[in-house]
Amino acid sequence: MTKLERLKEELVTANRILAREGVVDSFGHVSARHPDNPGRFLLSRARAPDCIEESDIMEFTLEGEPIDAGGRAPYLERFIHGGLYEARADVFSVVHNHSPSVIPFGVTGKKLKPLLHMCASCGHEVPIWDSQDKFGDTTLLVSDMAMGRDLAKHMGANPTTLMRGHGATVVGRSVRHAVFVSVYLEVGAKLQMQAMQMGEIKFLTKGEVDKIVARVNDYTLNRAWENWARRAGREMQKQPA
Amino acid sequence: MTKLERLKEELVTANRILAREGVVDSFGHVSARHPDNPGRFLLSRARAPDCIEESDIMEFTLEGEPIDAGGRAPYLERFIHGGLYEARADVFSVVHNHSPSVIPFGVTGKKLKPLLHMCASCGHEVPIWDSQDKFGDTTLLVSDMAMGRDLAKHMGANPTTLMRGHGATVVGRSVRHAVFVSVYLEVGAKLQMQAMQMGEIKFLTKGEVDKIVARVNDYTLNRAWENWARRAGREMQKQPA
Amino acid sequence: MTKLERLKEELVTANRILAREGVVDSFGHVSARHPDNPGRFLLSRARAPDCIEESDIMEFTLEGEPIDAGGRAPYLERFIHGGLYEARADVFSVVHNHSPSVIPFGVTGKKLKPLLHMCASCGHEVPIWDSQDKFGDTTLLVSDMAMGRDLAKHMGANPTTLMRGHGATVVGRSVRHAVFVSVYLEVGAKLQMQAMQMGEIKFLTKGEVDKIVARVNDYTLNRAWENWARRAGREMQKQPA
Amino acid sequence: MTKLERLKEELVTANRILAREGVVDSFGHVSARHPDNPGRFLLSRARAPDCIEESDIMEFTLEGEPIDAGGRAPYLERFIHGGLYEARADVFSVVHNHSPSVIPFGVTGKKLKPLLHMCASCGHEVPIWDSQDKFGDTTLLVSDMAMGRDLAKHMGANPTTLMRGHGATVVGRSVRHAVFVSVYLEVGAKLQMQAMQMGEIKFLTKGEVDKIVARVNDYTLNRAWENWARRAGREMQKQPA
Repeated sequence: MTKLERLKEELVTANRILAREGVVDSFGHVSARHPDNPGRFLLSRARAPDCIEESDIMEFTLEGEPIDAGGRAPYLERFIHGGLYEARADVFSVVHNHSPSVIPFGVTGKKLKPLLHMCASCGHEVPIWDSQDKFGDTTLLVSDMAMGRDLAKHMGANPTTLMRGHGATVVGRSVRHAVFVSVYLEVGAKLQMQAMQMGEIKFLTKGEVDKIVARVNDYTLNRAWENWARRAGREMQKQPA
Repeated sequence: MTKLERLKEELVTANRILAREGVVDSFGHVSARHPDNPGRFLLSRARAPDCIEESDIMEFTLEGEPIDAGGRAPYLERFIHGGLYEARADVFSVVHNHSPSVIPFGVTGKKLKPLLHMCASCGHEVPIWDSQDKFGDTTLLVSDMAMGRDLAKHMGANPTTLMRGHGATVVGRSVRHAVFVSVYLEVGAKLQMQAMQMGEIKFLTKGEVDKIVARVNDYTLNRAWENWARRAGREMQKQPA
Repeated sequence: MTKLERLKEELVTANRILAREGVVDSFGHVSARHPDNPGRFLLSRARAPDCIEESDIMEFTLEGEPIDAGGRAPYLERFIHGGLYEARADVFSVVHNHSPSVIPFGVTGKKLKPLLHMCASCGHEVPIWDSQDKFGDTTLLVSDMAMGRDLAKHMGANPTTLMRGHGATVVGRSVRHAVFVSVYLEVGAKLQMQAMQMGEIKFLTKGEVDKIVARVNDYTLNRAWENWARRAGREMQKQPA
Repeated sequence: MTKLERLKEELVTANRILAREGVVDSFGHVSARHPDNPGRFLLSRARAPDCIEESDIMEFTLEGEPIDAGGRAPYLERFIHGGLYEARADVFSVVHNHSPSVIPFGVTGKKLKPLLHMCASCGHEVPIWDSQDKFGDTTLLVSDMAMGRDLAKHMGANPTTLMRGHGATVVGRSVRHAVFVSVYLEVGAKLQMQAMQMGEIKFLTKGEVDKIVARVNDYTLNRAWENWARRAGREMQKQPA
């Protein structure tokens, strides 16, 4: 199998995992930067994540133009992915989701912060992007590069951002990393909602977050991936190069 | 297959989806206007949604009279459906449910409003119909046309209404549309309950709701339907004409 | 099949349903009055509800003495069942459970009341029995007839009672009825917990409860039973006489 | 089968049960003291609990040194287990988890206390260990014997302890006992979070806790184990000696 074929398989598994773990429902998507061409990225045609197969994975320029669409309709919101790959050379995978527990944070403006070691990867700061600020009344969908670039700019160097009334976007250094951060962003948000009802929360310190983030290696990611892939009915594969 | 046969299949799938997605339990129902005769509608005999088969689908006049019952007992609450098809020519499908997260809104009188783009289809306003107001102490069931018509009148041109101590009713321009609105009404209600505990909520603006509602097309509905049908163990079919 | 054999099958299905619907976990039990001898009742040997088979069903006197135990160890708390069959000729089935959503009501003393038509069967009043009041520090288990009789006395003519720090007990005119009331007691408790956080609750009126309770007939019970039996992997059978 | 082989099978089942019951996700672990050598313990190689097989179970000294690793990578946090086996001769099994409902207690400092008879086994007092107190900014992981011993010292003679921002650790007199306490610690934490929103809680009295703890025997543990093993797709076995 080529590097490209392996990465397409990885994306299919990622979609199935995100669906199985409740991070996406019939909507939401995950992409990867092209392994041979950093000016391209891979993303499924517009289809529910749990239904996606290898032949659904399309190739796009960073501006969201499909290469050889072959009749496949793309997701409208491919500009989220393009905007982030364009802005950040450190990003190799992007997840966009409507992960249920993050929504209440986006619409109330309450800051989501890591309180559990597994959730440190959401970073010191989870900004909230509000499409209303710059684009006024829209469908809230990131439907062109102007919106995609604004989202990327607002996100800055952070690993995650919420989107008011819409969901969240997460980046990673690999598909497994972006999926890991996405799953534990949901876990952390649910825990924080519960803890907020109980009293003052002792969040992780800045130093703890830094130490944990530095330690999340492929070993950690693969332990989770093996478990999630199995739950999603997919075979565990070596991580693509 | 005739248009009628396709629509019966569609209704079976709709019932299974609503059960699988937690919108109905052993009770609740979904109907469609007859494809050849706008003065009739199709609805299952009285049976739990997840058990329904094609042969359970009966035909009714808009006043709830069964055509050729063939020994099948109808749902008592068929008048919800009749009342709405009679009042609104724009309605081609009706879902009645006891969707868990909407109940607390109905009994506290708190207004359910869209805070997530996926939930805009519940409309600007979700009225609450209280059978007590006009009919006093009843079983709360919509058991005749007088009640069905009163519900339809109270609902007005809105896509959804809550029913105090009872559940919700949702209409759509197709079966897939009514199912979509029903699923995301439940999603939105759960999110709003959580967000209300956290602080002031920034709901979607009126302009955002209008723009999103205008964009929910068959494409969107089919993406969700493919996923839900698969989860419910039903084949994805083309949408009936 | 004899009436007794049918009823044993019904009890197995009831156990599986209660487990599948989250009303019991590895503990909790359901019994039926003997169809031929009102001075006896049927209850499984001490085993987790989801594991129970026909051969596990034992026969007991109303004082909890096993008839022909055949080496099978009984539940310690069989006195809950005996106490209720002894006190109330209207009772043909008893469910005892640790249904999760009812526990917070028992330990806070907040009154559980019906707010949804499906939940009216829990009755106008759900008393809370506290074993501490009469028996002081115990394991909280109803471990002899003195405790079983005290519980029955406290419950009075009500269909349900909570037990502080322990769970709930529900009675019915048939196995299907007791299971139905148990499932919707859990549903109603969860909804009430949510609604209490949102504001003042409009509960069902006394008249509404009476009207609904009068209407819950075998037809209603069988619709739910068909669905629940299927989910629990058991065949739908005619209700035993 | 030897005693050692039986115990390895038991540990595999324990891992699968903890995963199935939601006490562990892709992380967390359960160990047992070696049946023939109290100076050793058994623990899986670093792998997600639901994926573990007999050949993954490794042997360690109480200081966490692997005996005959055979290329298998150990869990970093094996020192939690070593520290507890070293400090307490009464401990034969240890579970470490990130059980979701206990996390909010750890980060808010609210005391988790038994309110349900099934949960009495968490003990009169659930201390909260904060790695920050003695070790400052770390990854929060118990990554050497100094931390393992400090945790064991803080836990004292209690059956459970929370770990701030991290999870919980539970000990037992057998694998089944430690699993039982872990499952009901999660159940109790969830119930207490709900009850705290409703009003003043009447917790179990000290006398009630003592009486219940004294009564939790192998009989109780086996009833739950049969049910949980079946749900996890594992055969029910006799408890290892």
